[in-house]
Amino acid sequence: MAERFEIVEKALVRMLEEKKYATLRDILITMNPSDVAAMFDGLEEKQIPLLFRLLPKEQAAETFVEMEPEAQELLIRGFSDNELKEVVDELYVDDAADLVEEMPANVVKRILRQATPEMRNTINQILRYGDNTAGSIMTTEYVSLRPDMTVEESILRIRRQGFDKETIYTCYVTQDRVLIGLVTVKDLLLCDNDETLIRDIMLTNLISVNTHTDKEEAARMLSHYNFLALPVVDREDRMVGIVTFDDAMDVMEDEATEDMELMGGMTPSEKTYLRSSAADLFKNRIPWLMLLMVSATFTGLIITAFEGALAAQVALTAFIPMLMGTGGNSGSQSSVTVIRALSLGELQFRDVGTVLWKELRTAVLCGIALAVVCFAKIWLIDRLLFGNNEITLMVDLVVCLALCVTVVIAKLVGCTLPLLAKVLHLDPAVMASPFISTIVDALSLLVYFVFAKALLGV
Amino acid sequence: MAERFEIVEKALVRMLEEKKYATLRDILITMNPSDVAAMFDGLEEKQIPLLFRLLPKEQAAETFVEMEPEAQELLIRGFSDNELKEVVDELYVDDAADLVEEMPANVVKRILRQATPEMRNTINQILRYGDNTAGSIMTTEYVSLRPDMTVEESILRIRRQGFDKETIYTCYVTQDRVLIGLVTVKDLLLCDNDETLIRDIMLTNLISVNTHTDKEEAARMLSHYNFLALPVVDREDRMVGIVTFDDAMDVMEDEATEDMELMGGMTPSEKTYLRSSAADLFKNRIPWLMLLMVSATFTGLIITAFEGALAAQVALTAFIPMLMGTGGNSGSQSSVTVIRALSLGELQFRDVGTVLWKELRTAVLCGIALAVVCFAKIWLIDRLLFGNNEITLMVDLVVCLALCVTVVIAKLVGCTLPLLAKVLHLDPAVMASPFISTIVDALSLLVYFVFAKALLGV
Repeated sequence: MAERFEIVEKALVRMLEEKKYATLRDILITMNPSDVAAMFDGLEEKQIPLLFRLLPKEQAAETFVEMEPEAQELLIRGFSDNELKEVVDELYVDDAADLVEEMPANVVKRILRQATPEMRNTINQILRYGDNTAGSIMTTEYVSLRPDMTVEESILRIRRQGFDKETIYTCYVTQDRVLIGLVTVKDLLLCDNDETLIRDIMLTNLISVNTHTDKEEAARMLSHYNFLALPVVDREDRMVGIVTFDDAMDVMEDEATEDMELMGGMTPSEKTYLRSSAADLFKNRIPWLMLLMVSATFTGLIITAFEGALAAQVALTAFIPMLMGTGGNSGSQSSVTVIRALSLGELQFRDVGTVLWKELRTAVLCGIALAVVCFAKIWLIDRLLFGNNEITLMVDLVVCLALCVTVVIAKLVGCTLPLLAKVLHLDPAVMASPFISTIVDALSLLVYFVFAKALLGV
Repeated sequence: MAERFEIVEKALVRMLEEKKYATLRDILITMNPSDVAAMFDGLEEKQIPLLFRLLPKEQAAETFVEMEPEAQELLIRGFSDNELKEVVDELYVDDAADLVEEMPANVVKRILRQATPEMRNTINQILRYGDNTAGSIMTTEYVSLRPDMTVEESILRIRRQGFDKETIYTCYVTQDRVLIGLVTVKDLLLCDNDETLIRDIMLTNLISVNTHTDKEEAARMLSHYNFLALPVVDREDRMVGIVTFDDAMDVMEDEATEDMELMGGMTPSEKTYLRSSAADLFKNRIPWLMLLMVSATFTGLIITAFEGALAAQVALTAFIPMLMGTGGNSGSQSSVTVIRALSLGELQFRDVGTVLWKELRTAVLCGIALAVVCFAKIWLIDRLLFGNNEITLMVDLVVCLALCVTVVIAKLVGCTLPLLAKVLHLDPAVMASPFISTIVDALSLLVYFVFAKALLGV
């Protein structure tokens, strides 16, 4: 799809430069707001307001929401108060709250001045919820019904209210603001008798989250139950908003990206790769590299301590990278599996016994298989094929025993640390490959030298 | 949420054992099918049909869909033909197709015998699409309207047809089976005049995918446009089905898991962690460990080739793990970032120039920063604090120069390989940490020894 749009985009930008505004407008109004927004990213600064003013009011607001913060700020700074009000009026409150969060203070002041007092209140309320909570991603605009309304009255109410509701397909039934049931528009449409009371057709096995529920947990619940929207209640079970499926999808995508970034030893960033400068990337990456480099002092110390052994059996040094590498890989396999299972909610800390037992058996299987193949490989390739006579049977044995033990240790460390992080309320994804490798490197060297001392007497 | 359900589950299983069927049934019917399905996973084999038969017909079918394949197979084997027909009749065709794909041949035969000829045809059609295509996850049940219908007629049609449509909220307008527009139920409900023609209110800026579009691409488009459903057309632009948001969410989650598993050096698996046996885990993990272990032969050879240098300057060996570790981490940072950007569709192969230039600048910044800190650390800690007099200024310089160059090489390798994989139509995620580390290990040793030879003359 990307290629196709690039051609269209180029043609549209040319029209803008050639001032063919009428034709341009005719094409823009047939386009999806997400695609129009993407076009703005490729424009020069002075072209942005020009193109934006060509859009009809409603499409302009929908496009505005999908734009990058930089372009949004540029536009707002150029807007007259009137233009700003027109855009703000069309925004859903959750989008308005996102905007207020992203913009610098002086821009925020202008936005809030244009918002209705009611909207201003709701925005403030949403912004009070912590960054990672369901409250921060919910919208307060939903259709609410009373249990004593009929199906016909309900449909009328949706028709009357529906214009500025982000989703109208699930309606929430409340009594004294407490959520007591839900009906879908499908239920309403498929109901034969218009006089049926809502209380008689509403679903009462409600699934809801609290404003303080982790937003990732809310997204996972929505996905688990295949809901279009998930109701959000406060501590007194009063309905305060809904999380919609499109926001949940974004949360799931962002959280997966964040986990991967942590797993790769980076500070997560909200900017896309192409929008991140080299300085941004440097800032996200260097702390981890420094930390891991400095902690490699331990491996250095271990090697220095066993310098004598290495000098006596020069063949031993050649296998250090293979041992550490295999240990690191074994550990990261386990940690990645456990981290993902934790973040999908498939595992809890209380499963630690099951996990350890499963990993131990897997590790022993892997360790033995690797050791056997390694033993043969060293003898056939390193000793016979390449004629390295420093490799004795005993050296081969030391390497393979160390390998087997290292794999077992690595897998146990790899599966335990993420679980430990979870219980300490840290993000388990921090305990991935880079971190685990550093620990396993040191442990594998220790194991190696202990075996070397015992079996080779060095 | 997990903890709460565990308590409920235990109470329900106890009721089952105590044969309190009536109470149990009363509770089950208030529960969400996804939760009832989760209960089945914890049951003993003989309890499964017992509990299932307590569910009312419709809830039984909805629960059945959410169950694990093992429990589904067990149930089908125990079903009478009549019971099987009842479940199959209630299934949506895409769920039926999933089921047919998961079950062994003799079970499939029984299922297809109970399906209507029409359903059988559709199932066969869906199964013909490749595993990763939009066709394989679409459903063929959607509401289609004609352009000359009125709003009132359309609502009537939805009411008549809607019972067995997976989603009714987006209706597709077709002419001679070709997709020409869409209307949402919201548009229909909010339309003032019941006599309005569909052609006058339908949206015509359509976004659709082909049956052969990659399912990940389809999911990404649906998320990008915040659609409830995405229409799927064949090569002649005829409408054949829709991909719904809930299936798209599952695809996104599965693909993220798959990418993480590949990044961790494992063969992706569809089983959850707790359902995978140690043998399953072994099978997914051992090929990669073997491959990477054997390819570490190269690092061994390089060390053996420079044995003389290491013997002459014993201090050099101690820094090998730090060098390889930092190289590996630098490379995996770049590869993880690029892999994720590729899978989110933010990057294409044609961006290779931008990526290389960005990574080069980042790498130089990281390399210099690390080298400076490393230089000071080695001198202050390793030499002065631990009194290792084998570390001369020249050795320190060799290590830090090698470190800087290694980081640059690692980052360039790390960002190039996933892009290369993409262009070769391989999964970029294969080119992650374990693979990159193995290459970078060998390169960093070479760089190290070249500097050692040049500056120390060993």
